[in-house]
Amino acid sequence: MIFQRIESEGLAHYSYMIGDRQEAIVIDPRRDCDPYIDIAEKEGFRITNILETHRNEDYLIGSIELASRTGAEIWHAEPELGYRYGKTVEDGREWKAGRLKIKAIHTPGHTSGHMSYLLHDSKGNPWVLFSGDTLFAGDVGRTDLAGKERIPEMTGLLYDSIFSKIIPLGDHVVVCPAHGSGSVCAASIADRVWTSIGMERLYNPKLRHTQREDFIKNNGQELEVPPYFRKMEELNLFPPLLSNLPVPTPLSADKFMEQSSRGTVLDSRLELDFGAAHVPGSLSIWMGGIPSFAGWFIDYDRPVFLVGETEKTAEVVRMLARMGYDRIGGSLSGGMLAWHMAGEESASNGMEPVQSLCGRIDGGEDFFILDVRSEDELRKEGRIPTALNIHITQLPGNLDKIPRDRPVHIFCGSGLRSTIAASLLQRAGWKDITVILGGMAGWKSQKCPVEK
Amino acid sequence: MIFQRIESEGLAHYSYMIGDRQEAIVIDPRRDCDPYIDIAEKEGFRITNILETHRNEDYLIGSIELASRTGAEIWHAEPELGYRYGKTVEDGREWKAGRLKIKAIHTPGHTSGHMSYLLHDSKGNPWVLFSGDTLFAGDVGRTDLAGKERIPEMTGLLYDSIFSKIIPLGDHVVVCPAHGSGSVCAASIADRVWTSIGMERLYNPKLRHTQREDFIKNNGQELEVPPYFRKMEELNLFPPLLSNLPVPTPLSADKFMEQSSRGTVLDSRLELDFGAAHVPGSLSIWMGGIPSFAGWFIDYDRPVFLVGETEKTAEVVRMLARMGYDRIGGSLSGGMLAWHMAGEESASNGMEPVQSLCGRIDGGEDFFILDVRSEDELRKEGRIPTALNIHITQLPGNLDKIPRDRPVHIFCGSGLRSTIAASLLQRAGWKDITVILGGMAGWKSQKCPVEK
Amino acid sequence: MIFQRIESEGLAHYSYMIGDRQEAIVIDPRRDCDPYIDIAEKEGFRITNILETHRNEDYLIGSIELASRTGAEIWHAEPELGYRYGKTVEDGREWKAGRLKIKAIHTPGHTSGHMSYLLHDSKGNPWVLFSGDTLFAGDVGRTDLAGKERIPEMTGLLYDSIFSKIIPLGDHVVVCPAHGSGSVCAASIADRVWTSIGMERLYNPKLRHTQREDFIKNNGQELEVPPYFRKMEELNLFPPLLSNLPVPTPLSADKFMEQSSRGTVLDSRLELDFGAAHVPGSLSIWMGGIPSFAGWFIDYDRPVFLVGETEKTAEVVRMLARMGYDRIGGSLSGGMLAWHMAGEESASNGMEPVQSLCGRIDGGEDFFILDVRSEDELRKEGRIPTALNIHITQLPGNLDKIPRDRPVHIFCGSGLRSTIAASLLQRAGWKDITVILGGMAGWKSQKCPVEK
Amino acid sequence: MIFQRIESEGLAHYSYMIGDRQEAIVIDPRRDCDPYIDIAEKEGFRITNILETHRNEDYLIGSIELASRTGAEIWHAEPELGYRYGKTVEDGREWKAGRLKIKAIHTPGHTSGHMSYLLHDSKGNPWVLFSGDTLFAGDVGRTDLAGKERIPEMTGLLYDSIFSKIIPLGDHVVVCPAHGSGSVCAASIADRVWTSIGMERLYNPKLRHTQREDFIKNNGQELEVPPYFRKMEELNLFPPLLSNLPVPTPLSADKFMEQSSRGTVLDSRLELDFGAAHVPGSLSIWMGGIPSFAGWFIDYDRPVFLVGETEKTAEVVRMLARMGYDRIGGSLSGGMLAWHMAGEESASNGMEPVQSLCGRIDGGEDFFILDVRSEDELRKEGRIPTALNIHITQLPGNLDKIPRDRPVHIFCGSGLRSTIAASLLQRAGWKDITVILGGMAGWKSQKCPVEK
Repeated sequence: MIFQRIESEGLAHYSYMIGDRQEAIVIDPRRDCDPYIDIAEKEGFRITNILETHRNEDYLIGSIELASRTGAEIWHAEPELGYRYGKTVEDGREWKAGRLKIKAIHTPGHTSGHMSYLLHDSKGNPWVLFSGDTLFAGDVGRTDLAGKERIPEMTGLLYDSIFSKIIPLGDHVVVCPAHGSGSVCAASIADRVWTSIGMERLYNPKLRHTQREDFIKNNGQELEVPPYFRKMEELNLFPPLLSNLPVPTPLSADKFMEQSSRGTVLDSRLELDFGAAHVPGSLSIWMGGIPSFAGWFIDYDRPVFLVGETEKTAEVVRMLARMGYDRIGGSLSGGMLAWHMAGEESASNGMEPVQSLCGRIDGGEDFFILDVRSEDELRKEGRIPTALNIHITQLPGNLDKIPRDRPVHIFCGSGLRSTIAASLLQRAGWKDITVILGGMAGWKSQKCPVEK
Repeated sequence: MIFQRIESEGLAHYSYMIGDRQEAIVIDPRRDCDPYIDIAEKEGFRITNILETHRNEDYLIGSIELASRTGAEIWHAEPELGYRYGKTVEDGREWKAGRLKIKAIHTPGHTSGHMSYLLHDSKGNPWVLFSGDTLFAGDVGRTDLAGKERIPEMTGLLYDSIFSKIIPLGDHVVVCPAHGSGSVCAASIADRVWTSIGMERLYNPKLRHTQREDFIKNNGQELEVPPYFRKMEELNLFPPLLSNLPVPTPLSADKFMEQSSRGTVLDSRLELDFGAAHVPGSLSIWMGGIPSFAGWFIDYDRPVFLVGETEKTAEVVRMLARMGYDRIGGSLSGGMLAWHMAGEESASNGMEPVQSLCGRIDGGEDFFILDVRSEDELRKEGRIPTALNIHITQLPGNLDKIPRDRPVHIFCGSGLRSTIAASLLQRAGWKDITVILGGMAGWKSQKCPVEK
Repeated sequence: MIFQRIESEGLAHYSYMIGDRQEAIVIDPRRDCDPYIDIAEKEGFRITNILETHRNEDYLIGSIELASRTGAEIWHAEPELGYRYGKTVEDGREWKAGRLKIKAIHTPGHTSGHMSYLLHDSKGNPWVLFSGDTLFAGDVGRTDLAGKERIPEMTGLLYDSIFSKIIPLGDHVVVCPAHGSGSVCAASIADRVWTSIGMERLYNPKLRHTQREDFIKNNGQELEVPPYFRKMEELNLFPPLLSNLPVPTPLSADKFMEQSSRGTVLDSRLELDFGAAHVPGSLSIWMGGIPSFAGWFIDYDRPVFLVGETEKTAEVVRMLARMGYDRIGGSLSGGMLAWHMAGEESASNGMEPVQSLCGRIDGGEDFFILDVRSEDELRKEGRIPTALNIHITQLPGNLDKIPRDRPVHIFCGSGLRSTIAASLLQRAGWKDITVILGGMAGWKSQKCPVEK
Repeated sequence: MIFQRIESEGLAHYSYMIGDRQEAIVIDPRRDCDPYIDIAEKEGFRITNILETHRNEDYLIGSIELASRTGAEIWHAEPELGYRYGKTVEDGREWKAGRLKIKAIHTPGHTSGHMSYLLHDSKGNPWVLFSGDTLFAGDVGRTDLAGKERIPEMTGLLYDSIFSKIIPLGDHVVVCPAHGSGSVCAASIADRVWTSIGMERLYNPKLRHTQREDFIKNNGQELEVPPYFRKMEELNLFPPLLSNLPVPTPLSADKFMEQSSRGTVLDSRLELDFGAAHVPGSLSIWMGGIPSFAGWFIDYDRPVFLVGETEKTAEVVRMLARMGYDRIGGSLSGGMLAWHMAGEESASNGMEPVQSLCGRIDGGEDFFILDVRSEDELRKEGRIPTALNIHITQLPGNLDKIPRDRPVHIFCGSGLRSTIAASLLQRAGWKDITVILGGMAGWKSQKCPVEK
């Protein structure tokens, strides 16, 4: 028997492959679909069906990709969207894979056509619920993507799906959601990598509100919508076939200088490297942050040029491809070392450990503190005295709130998002910018002052 | 967070590695311990503690191996056995790994000092039970290893452990046992690779007997004890350090001929290859069957010589090392092709598809049918008319029941175990032996006669 | 600096990737072109140019494949063939890769437009000759592919290329040919995996004939032309884009039975497995023999169905794809074990060690010996008394020479090619066929009689 | 046939594995010897003999390691050294591996007992010379390791070895030396990865001096001797058995702070990362520079603590182990990001692109330029006006030449070695230190002034 979770790191997206007696089913495949095929080949399984739980907003679905290489049938939830390929799942439909049975359960809320899938074991007992974006470990799916005005309606549907359809399945049923901790598809998924309906019934804070009205009031939140969600929704109706991941052309420093002006320069190095020296005008997103932040700051209309370690380039390309950024203009061959050896000019930004800021915060010195953490973090961890809070994702629309004539110190949880902010400000013309290394974590270690 | 199951294929042994914030704990590590170290190195974790659920009988525990390379502390259950290394777990003891907490629960039954470990998630909620050999998916641990006379006592302890300690933890708790489907440590583990206490409470046939007496009567079975269990028990008190898997010396046909006479020749090829031609006097166990059957038929006192595919030799060596067979005399370089090209003589046995036997079974022809399937299979699948049933593992002690003057046809589920039997008989001097290809599966496909 | 040989095993085809300072050139790439891209990505190199030495007959060139993924330019030798993509190399043309220089040298003979490429090191000294199919270790390129009547002309051109263009480059120049030992592109390539012009001048038996007439007389041989050469020549003018290797659908025994009748069943197992049991009507070519023999016996017009080990299926598919067999109908899921367990009927053939035949060869027994070794082997190793010699590749056209009413014993070097022959005869209706295990190698070990 | 070069990157050490018909020989194996064993297992070869060309100074030989796992025999050159294991090679001794023959040729010069090994192909023709440290591509072995006073004697021996024993073998013989470009065992090895005796005879600048006296005068150079050479020489008489590479314990920031004070902190990140922030008191050697520079600056008597990327830690450990640094105290878990998040203080150094220095060099500003490039580079590339030149390796003994009261700008080829120097100066108490990014390469790109 096959029972595999295939994770897209960074996106915290979980897809699943189950199978028995040489027949396999894949749920919500990712676009770089080699893992499913490799498992099938190694174990001698045929992938017969691809089941989608819902139309995704945070990544390009790999159904077409996988079907084109295996001949599997694609099953879409949400037929109303007008897919141009695949078949439509109806509530209650069943599929077989050897002795296993899997059954569709309509669980609207996150979207109106969302399907969950209940896997029965080889004895026919209900065993695992693939809950898509309905129920996560420690959280529930967001209900604001159909528009602000429909939040109460959608949250009510979600309540019904969870309390009338999922919880009655029993505490013992294993739950396999479409996302884990770190996803943008819910506010705060827990890090229980395996969970059960009972675990959620008992410990999921969102399910404490067992009355419908109460649930709607407390869980009908509006969350941030990264601009690329709209692009994903559009592309997911018929994702372009990838076949192989793009291979970025390595460019010498002078060629990179020349060509990258027509696109976005993405620097995937860590905060220290970027702060020390970077290609002028480049955008900083450290590698691990690309799935969360690329969609906020990178245009689909212009090619992306990469700065970072050669051995990590392929992984950056993979992450971008999952979000539909297929136009890679090239990469800086030899990295910043080669850039400097070619005599090219670089930019830098200030960096200071927390100690330095901590000691000066009350000193009457004239500088400005920008804190790019989220509301949620501010609530949990407290605020830095005198700082202006703008969440990193909202920075581009709020630049006018930041003074241009005073030194700007940027603060976040660790220094990583501060460096994104530093690059955004530099691109917009700011000069005197300093990233606070260690961020809130360091701040607390040093017992620096915090306002609740 | 790390939560990984590391499986030893064939043995169906599951070990686990959990960790948070750079601290990791390994439960019941296997002897070829690279996977734990690789995960730790890749993720930057330190393995701080190694927890054993019980003294194992079916494989050599890797605690010493892993501790010698990482400096982790070893914690034994069952101190009464007199381990010569490591520390003793007491009921209720707790360990931390980052924000995770893990707690020992004494759950005797399979052995008297058996410990289960309850993992709490980062919020402190009970989450996963590492149940060792107490509770499996669809089965419970065997209780006969302390001796036949103590079965009722041990089964009663097991009842108490399960019904008074485990089930009260709640249906929602995820269960991670030490074995999966295919293990020799229980009669019939289900193929639910992930399960929960509720799944077992509801669907585990062994737990239907909710009364203590009833449970003891029904689950106090005596199962077969492979002879190597005793060796494992002895060695597990202080397993020899392996460092690296042995590298068998490839031997030319003539050297193999000469040297292998002082050991056991193990042929790991499939039934067709072995039947067509093999080194005279060799023992057949197809590769996938080595973890289950090597311990029945291979001496620890003599070196093992290998015949099989070159590219699979390392995997065979790994399987044997897990069971403490560290003395590998060499391998036949170039396999049987080289053997024949060197002009060496080979032996063979007859092979017939089921059709052939099926057509002749009532024909009055004089031949003998030996069926080497287990009692359990006979009960479920039925018997072949006129066949003598001796389970493959009991064959060496029952050779006198098989006639030497008539053709012997050997039957099992598929043909694989029949080939083991064929090799045992040939080594004992039988000449006219035929393996029935397809076995019971083919027999049924052809609707040949079965007696219930 | 990059200097890599990428080998296509079995075909004994060598391609090369050289590079300096982030620029790389690939010579004669294979169709499954991941290795070049992986090296380039890992080292941060850009593949700028793809150079072909000549139009190949024995495999599909990967130029289009590699160019489509990297944007490299393709350079063809032999423009007269009318390629529908790429550019034409002219004699003397030069390319740069960092400080390296590579220069085209027209070396006709194997084909009329054949180009060799002389690599100069970073100091500008001539260093390595990529000699394509002109000069091999221990052999020279065949000159019979332009037709029998043009052999003297082409052999003369080859003489001129070698003696007037290559040898004058100097003994010290390293030679990197397009093929190694085992290729069908020359009669007997030596197993010197690295060689030099001097090594060849001194030790290559074909170059002993230093007079033009003498060279033509001795080296103007007509060799066998596998039927698929014509297909390769045709396809190589514009090879179909592959993108990813085909993924064969695993088929259950009954589906395989049903569907495979419309194609060729290729069984890639070894001689013993096939002899013991195989799908009736299947063609045997052991895995290592596929590059050499598939092109003789498999139709391009019908799909190929695979029988063999699951874990080797992908490699068989890869080998077939290199020869343009892209239509894979499916594979037998679970192999012959599953076939028998489904109760399907199988065929078998006799197998006997050399001893058995050796003892009976003079006994007046009525049987027929077919020896499928090549003329070259017969000359070197001698003949078996009373045997009829038909080279395995010529067997389909010479079936009428083999009696249908007597037992047929088949003989080759080891038993592998005999099994191909056995399968061909069985497909043509022969019943009583026996493969001699060990073949000529075993025969000699046993000192059985040989006629020179 | 097997013919493999196994390279130890960084050290530019080449070892070789050759084999035929299941027998293999390894020449100068490295200590982390998995590659040889993996090849042998995959191909079914037995490693029968291990040949050493000479006692090495730049790495720990892996003979004992490999012999302990395979049972191969070890053959030492230079018996006078008093090895405590293995056997002694005599001039002219021969070994077989299948049809291959390999013969020892005494070629003193680099050391007095140095052996080269001449491989003959399967036809018995001399084919490849494993020349050890006698003859490299573009260079010859250094002759100063026996002491300054013996340089003329040793250089004369080298002349005799090359001109009387090697060159007479013929231009066509392929040469496989023990080192490639980048090694410390010769001044300037060329980047011809494969070469021949003729290539060297014609293009090796050291061989232009064909008269003995002339050769001695020109090639009898004294080169730098890293302090660890003495350690290697001592350890190579009986290298400690490694079995498995050490696994460094990941330490949290506070534990790292506490424990690392008793050892050397090695920071393997690039120049920008280190310059931006590092653990106070740490030594910078970028990863690629470890094989060349660790032996100059790291004590054998104290444990090494590692700062760098988690995923590269194992590779750093491997590099250190090759040089006998087996005591790894631990690694900084989570790197500098975690360090700052823990609120720990970090140090930094100034960084400036070449433009900045170039513009100020004549401005009368008061700063000091330290150029840490080698004499050889100064000769080839020119000097920076006003700079003091101290080769990086000589810096610890020449600190008194550097002013403590003025800003120090450090210059090298790129900025990497400057960062080593910056860390050495910081550890010795200097405060105002700036690394010039881009170094000589950038300097020239910007056409800044150079003195020849």
